[in-house]
Parts: sequence; structure tokens; C-alpha cells
Amino acid sequence: MELAPFMAPEHVKQFKQLVDEGFYDGLDFYRVIEGFVAQGGDMAGNKASEFKAPLKAEFTRSASADSGFQLLQEPDFFAPQTGYINGFAAGRDPKTSQQWLIHCPGTVAMARSIEADSATTDFYIVIGQAPRHLDRNMSVFGRVLYGMEYIQALPRGDAMVNSGVIENPEQRGKILTAQLASQLPETERLKLQVQHTDSEAMQTRLDQGRSMDNPFFKYKGNGKLDICYYPARVRLARH
Amino acid sequence: MELAPFMAPEHVKQFKQLVDEGFYDGLDFYRVIEGFVAQGGDMAGNKASEFKAPLKAEFTRSASADSGFQLLQEPDFFAPQTGYINGFAAGRDPKTSQQWLIHCPGTVAMARSIEADSATTDFYIVIGQAPRHLDRNMSVFGRVLYGMEYIQALPRGDAMVNSGVIENPEQRGKILTAQLASQLPETERLKLQVQHTDSEAMQTRLDQGRSMDNPFFKYKGNGKLDICYYPARVRLARH
Repeated sequence: MELAPFMAPEHVKQFKQLVDEGFYDGLDFYRVIEGFVAQGGDMAGNKASEFKAPLKAEFTRSASADSGFQLLQEPDFFAPQTGYINGFAAGRDPKTSQQWLIHCPGTVAMARSIEADSATTDFYIVIGQAPRHLDRNMSVFGRVLYGMEYIQALPRGDAMVNSGVIENPEQRGKILTAQLASQLPETERLKLQVQHTDSEAMQTRLDQGRSMDNPFFKYKGNGKLDICYYPARVRLARH
Repeated sequence: MELAPFMAPEHVKQFKQLVDEGFYDGLDFYRVIEGFVAQGGDMAGNKASEFKAPLKAEFTRSASADSGFQLLQEPDFFAPQTGYINGFAAGRDPKTSQQWLIHCPGTVAMARSIEADSATTDFYIVIGQAPRHLDRNMSVFGRVLYGMEYIQALPRGDAMVNSGVIENPEQRGKILTAQLASQLPETERLKLQVQHTDSEAMQTRLDQGRSMDNPFFKYKGNGKLDICYYPARVRLARH
């Protein structure tokens, strides 16, 4: 996962502290709903930690001139504008000068109760069609860069029973350990190459998506792009 | 899978013939791309069959007055209208009187080469964010009703190498057998309950999606709905 301190600094800080103290080690993905999210953490809420104080919501941020927002689509179906900030899918509203991270497959956000400022430790990863109604309602603080296929292979709950919670802990996927790459020796870190959203290759991909100028396509679309269909590509580095 | 003879009768006919003769038994999901599709069939193209003649494209159909199109959203981001036909996500263009099935997670369509009328046996299942640029470009003929989590657990190829084909057949997910429910004894059929899209429960769900009238949501959205986020719900029948 890559974290997004530029958007949700307090969530990132707490998540890193929790990872660092081993809070998530041995916990479960206890609520996994096909086509929606895989939620992990301390379902019972019993695990002690110094770092589980409720967090102030970080749903949106003021868009500063230097945020580096790279416009993709205006208007989007759900937002006045979509684009990329530091490689993350983002929305922006020029009228309110607010920007936010978008719920796409692989997006990581903190779960919460009905109160905005109630997130503590449990997080979810989007595994289905983008749940865009959660945009501006949840604190998105990261995205999965690599390994979504392992998240997709997690055992599911029944969405129509107990909100998708898997009753039997034995049947849940486990978090064996969570580690900060920055705390690992360099040789043990996963080396990834992440496409720059402002690269020529990405621009070509987006241009082709807009024009559909390819004989394979008989219907050429309307030129609009869904930001969640165009994540920056990631691969294992060759060396 | 549920098939869609009302939209792609020739594709459904050929697929059923292929299933019935055991064509798919023992073949692989040879091209599986995280966030995109799982494609299965006879990659080598060597397997003999009476039923592998190239099919005429069934990308769209004329919208007849009695098609039972249940409007969801007008306009959609990619289509003039979206809605449901027989429980399937569909698009419609009142200007051209054409309708078509939409690529959502779980959508099943026949693969083809660059020519429109070239599909024969190989099919794909959407496993990621809706690839809506394929709408009106591919013959959608079915949808997965149950078991998407097993499709999601299939081994992946590398999208950036050989179009995501898994080179080593040993590493591919297998189609052990494909069977028509209609050919099975009633006691061996999977009993499913599929939500009617015109039911009160579905209507309530869509109304809630539009209004977001729930104290959990601090931002109430713009009232628009993504058809791919609102599939008809399916569950195992209790008896």
C-alpha cells in the first residue's frame, strides 16, 4: 500500500503507528463483501493500543494552488472534476476549492461509525465497482499498489447477513503481519515501478481511451473517462 | 451464469451447444487481468467442435416497445439511458432506438478478434471496474449470478506481458466442467433467488442510493446512480 499523507495526514500517522506497534498482526479481514470492500482490523475492539484515539474526519481538503492536481475529466459523473494527485485518483470542486481522494478498486480508507470523527483502527480496501457515494464521506488514506489479487482471493461474508461479517473467525482471511516498508532493510522491500500519471505513456493511454481510435472499436464512445478505470500502472521492478 | 437470449440469441445458442457437448471441459482461464477480465476457452484454437462458426455481432438490438426496459438513470456517464432488462444492466439510446447490455462486474461476453463478426468460443467475465468502452463493441450474452468470488480468486497473468496471457498452462485456473442447469436433474441444480429489479426492496435500495438520506452520509451526493453499482441481488435459496 502507498499512503496519502498529503490528503489524510492524521489517518496516515495513526495507521503507521498502529502498523509499527504490530497492532494489526494476527487480526482478520472480518467483513468481506463481494463487489464492495474487504474490511480488516479489530472487530471486537478489545486490542489495546496507545494509538486508537478517534480521528478527526479527513474527508476533503482545501485545494491549494500547489497541490499538483492533474485534470482528467470535467465534469465527472459524480464530481465536478476528477484527476490525479500524486498518482492517486482524486476529485475536485472548483466552487468550494475542496479536493478529495476517490473510492476506486484498491482504495484504502478508515472505517467509522455514524459519527464523522469516529475512525480509530479498522480499515477497508475497495474490491468492487467504485462505491463513489463514499467519496467525501470517508477518510481515504491510501491505495493498494501491488497484490490486489490476494485481496480479491479473501474469503467472503454474506452481504445480506450481519453486514457481511464472517461469523466464524476460523473462516476469515488473516493479517499475518503488517509492516512499514520504511522499517524494512532495503533488500527486503518490494521494489515497485509506478507509472507517473503525467508521463508520456500515461498520456497516450488516456488519449487512446478518449478517442478509441483503434479499429477494434466499432463504437467510438463519447470521449469521457472514468478515473477508476485508469489507475497508474504498477509493476515489480526488474532489478 | 444466467444467459441473455433476449439480447444475443445466436451467442447464447452457440454457447449452450458448446457447453452441452463438453467443449469447455478441461480448458483454462488463460488470460486473467486483475481489475479487468478473466478470459476462458480454447486459447490454442485447436479443439474441434461442430459449433465454432464465427458469430455475427450482437452488440446492440433494436429497442422494441415490449422490451421491459426499466429506466435507472438518464443520462448516464456513458449512455443516454441506463436501466434493467430482465434483471440485466442495460443501456438505451432513444434517438437510435438501440439497446445493449452493459459491461459491469460479472458480465459475460464473447471475445473476438478485430473483426466484429469473429467471435467463436472464447468468453470473458468482467472482474474489475466496469470497462464501459466495451459496451456496444462486444456481444454480451450473460452474467454471473453466483460465485464471483471464485472467479476473483483465479490466478492472474501480467497485464503488461503478452496481453495478460498466463504462459504456463499449469499456472492457469481450470474449467473442470461447464454444465447447463437445464440439463441437470432438479436436485442437482443450484437454487438461487434473484431480486426482481422492479420489486419494492430494489426500489427502496435505489431511492436510498439517490437520496443518501441516512445520517451516516455527511455529503449527500448528486442523486446519480451507476448501474454497475446496483446489480439485482442474488442469494442461495434456503430450501
